[in-house]
Amino acid sequence: MTDARPIAIFDSGIGGLTVLAALQRRLPGERFVYLGDTARLPYGTKSAETVVRYAVRAAGFLAGHDAKLLVVACNSVSASALPALEEAMEVPVIGVVAPGARTALAATRGRVGVIGTESTVASGAYERALRALRPDVEVTARACPLFVPLAEEGWWDHPVTREVAALYLEPFTGGRVDTLILGCTHYPLLRPAIAAALGDGVRLVDSAEAVAAEVEALVAHRDLGGKGGGGVRLLVTDAAARIDRIAGLILPGTAVHLELVDLPD
Amino acid sequence: MTDARPIAIFDSGIGGLTVLAALQRRLPGERFVYLGDTARLPYGTKSAETVVRYAVRAAGFLAGHDAKLLVVACNSVSASALPALEEAMEVPVIGVVAPGARTALAATRGRVGVIGTESTVASGAYERALRALRPDVEVTARACPLFVPLAEEGWWDHPVTREVAALYLEPFTGGRVDTLILGCTHYPLLRPAIAAALGDGVRLVDSAEAVAAEVEALVAHRDLGGKGGGGVRLLVTDAAARIDRIAGLILPGTAVHLELVDLPD
Repeated sequence: MTDARPIAIFDSGIGGLTVLAALQRRLPGERFVYLGDTARLPYGTKSAETVVRYAVRAAGFLAGHDAKLLVVACNSVSASALPALEEAMEVPVIGVVAPGARTALAATRGRVGVIGTESTVASGAYERALRALRPDVEVTARACPLFVPLAEEGWWDHPVTREVAALYLEPFTGGRVDTLILGCTHYPLLRPAIAAALGDGVRLVDSAEAVAAEVEALVAHRDLGGKGGGGVRLLVTDAAARIDRIAGLILPGTAVHLELVDLPD
Repeated sequence: MTDARPIAIFDSGIGGLTVLAALQRRLPGERFVYLGDTARLPYGTKSAETVVRYAVRAAGFLAGHDAKLLVVACNSVSASALPALEEAMEVPVIGVVAPGARTALAATRGRVGVIGTESTVASGAYERALRALRPDVEVTARACPLFVPLAEEGWWDHPVTREVAALYLEPFTGGRVDTLILGCTHYPLLRPAIAAALGDGVRLVDSAEAVAAEVEALVAHRDLGGKGGGGVRLLVTDAAARIDRIAGLILPGTAVHLELVDLPD
């Protein structure tokens, strides 16, 4: 049995290309269709109501691409809109929060930190997911609003980024956490600066890797695997030149071709 | 003769509150209705096509508020969408680019710098406006993508902001410009850090002040003045908690009440 339908990936922008890259490494035979809602990004600074509205609209669009499952790469959407998306889609929907929480619990000795956008942190989704699985886990969360703009500027290990990381991540130093969830698709790009600010002894959990592992398991378990030659379509709702530039930063060495689509709105 | 209709102000977000504050200082008897399209911000990273589409929709909404003129506080909209807005509105439309360019030309000895968002700088609107009035003016422009997130973080004169300003503004130092246009509504908030990076000898042109002076002149010239008791309505399309917080930073000492409105989309 093979299932040649593509795997759909949805993100507010192009940070989710880190999730796409992780999925392609694990499932090279699969076809992917990626939608970045670049006309409305960022979602991470907006209210849950607005995030749900945009996400449901995007999911409806992706349903028209005959996807066999939907991966929600965006932490803000995963945190606020997963129930609404599960209701709107007829195929399995996998967000990044639950896989990230499970991976963190497998690693931690009991004290987990979470960093993300303002909306992800305000939602409390990671805390809920962590405590549902292990009620006595200690969780410290903090929003890091400048990390996305710094990543998009390409300043991944820049002195300014190291200084901002030292300020934002101070609550996670000195043994106060042993594991830190990178709860935003852009943050793995800043890994060297984040690691430097934390010092040794804090394990970093990349939610892109966590969700890719979970998708791989689901595809195997439900016999959804495609044996096609791979391939990916990258759809965006706004095609500013910076989007191309940042996509090239995230997927170096790849000829990135972004197709502009119009989401009915 | 008095004209009690409100003055409409449109911005992609709440940075335009710096323009509102400048207008209120000059025209305390006027009523204002402000619309910030916070559900779709920022515009400054998006393509001209998307900016025009969003701006025309917002102008149509403001036309329903019986405004006597429309002030476009957003530089990205002023740079890309002014002709479309003038066509869509039956009342005068004033953007920030032309007033900023005129103010800079009144101040400069011949070398003008422009800083703004990526879309404002890519549009070349300030260069065109400057050269149309003085063809031999030398213009140097540069996008400063981190300035808006730094302003919204409240790091107006923070060491990190000073370091970023020193990096971004290096092309404007050493006598290479004598006047610099702050071509984004947020940038006046960072004035101390910007001034420190430039050193003495560079005059800063605040486009918020420039447009407020031009609106004051237009109101007097066309006899559009209201003698009401002032008053302002602040409308936003997304009401995330951070919007309230940043509005409070920009308008300190004011009881800011944001009303959530739904822009048909």
